[in-house]
Amino acid sequence: MERAVEHESLTAIDADEASFLAPVPRPPKIVCAGLNYRDHAEEQDEEIPDEPLLFAKAPTTVTNPNDPFVHPEGEQVDYEVELAVVVGRMAKDIDEDEVLEHVAGYTVLNDVSGRDAQFSDGQFFRGKSYDTFSPMGPTLTTGGDFDPNAVDVALRVDGETKQSSNTDQFIFNVHELVSYISANMTLQPGDVISTGTPGGVGIFRYPVDLLEPGQTCEAEIAGIGTLTNHVVAE
Amino acid sequence: MERAVEHESLTAIDADEASFLAPVPRPPKIVCAGLNYRDHAEEQDEEIPDEPLLFAKAPTTVTNPNDPFVHPEGEQVDYEVELAVVVGRMAKDIDEDEVLEHVAGYTVLNDVSGRDAQFSDGQFFRGKSYDTFSPMGPTLTTGGDFDPNAVDVALRVDGETKQSSNTDQFIFNVHELVSYISANMTLQPGDVISTGTPGGVGIFRYPVDLLEPGQTCEAEIAGIGTLTNHVVAE
Repeated sequence: MERAVEHESLTAIDADEASFLAPVPRPPKIVCAGLNYRDHAEEQDEEIPDEPLLFAKAPTTVTNPNDPFVHPEGEQVDYEVELAVVVGRMAKDIDEDEVLEHVAGYTVLNDVSGRDAQFSDGQFFRGKSYDTFSPMGPTLTTGGDFDPNAVDVALRVDGETKQSSNTDQFIFNVHELVSYISANMTLQPGDVISTGTPGGVGIFRYPVDLLEPGQTCEAEIAGIGTLTNHVVAE
Repeated sequence: MERAVEHESLTAIDADEASFLAPVPRPPKIVCAGLNYRDHAEEQDEEIPDEPLLFAKAPTTVTNPNDPFVHPEGEQVDYEVELAVVVGRMAKDIDEDEVLEHVAGYTVLNDVSGRDAQFSDGQFFRGKSYDTFSPMGPTLTTGGDFDPNAVDVALRVDGETKQSSNTDQFIFNVHELVSYISANMTLQPGDVISTGTPGGVGIFRYPVDLLEPGQTCEAEIAGIGTLTNHVVAE
């Protein structure tokens, strides 16, 4: 991923000199799975669910790699590293064994969450939908030998590891999750399906360990890269 | 609203001969208020909330006037007539007294709801986001003497009135609601803000009175018109 492929009409540039943008600046929809890692269910003392739990984030939340995200004054702002699936083809009622034909690629999404709004509403939408609350990138990994159901996932705050897991901890893997969502609603090219976060989020730590302006989040998934974003005050 | 305005390059056509389409076929986002009528809060024995409760519907739910909406097999499908605000200008942090400058117009939205998915998930998104679950129309009413906070709202199933109220029952009126949402997230042209439903929905009736394939819903708001949709089996 370090250098663009040479092509007769293209010039390779150094990754260090490039600006990376979110793979989809304004997805038609962002559908998220809650409670989809065994270790995240355990830290909340939640039972393993029978079906995926879905919620939405506003498309206006998307933020580029290396751009800051905003800490709204008075909110309890938390990180959630997630593997995100970008849909490539319009589809409804996809069988599990056909899911990969409908995937454009995979990226990292930091499902930044305002815990005050999330928990006071009960509905997750508002707390998850502040502007800038979906940093996404740095690359879109497409196929090859990337196995979305067996990759390391980690999140660091100021260099300190807070989340460290592997997507083999999924309760519902990518094939099951995309198939399940497509049974309910038509998927469109550019839709983002975020697959849930592993254990270690700040709100369930003791003592509670939330984000403050001035800190830096690095969300890393093996085979995709590291998504780095600073936290800034409103 | 019966005839289009004559214009030298336009020909007026009879409304009876026209096909009406949803004012926004794929909104960037659909943000809904739950529990925003005093009479709907009372029928659920819910306290009047201090802040609006927000949730999202998938944009892929939008359905045209007179097109059917689908009754997924085994779901408990319910109607909810709502006044919907269509956003006209990109905006963030709108003051209440500036809200009307950002409104493109008003339409009727039937917030069709799958109660099984809604209540089993707790999160409203999936039960509200089956394809076809947001019939919208038949017109986009723009300003004039239309007062969004004092119009009659009704819903009939096969001609029988199930919901009958007035937006003067709003807990948070259009100005308060749009301002509140815009404090949280950027609004884009074409965004739809649905303002909640009055009392009389099927799930809270005794006995429960949900929709069946073959029935017809008419959602009517004074000054906008009647949105008619048939219910069909999956």
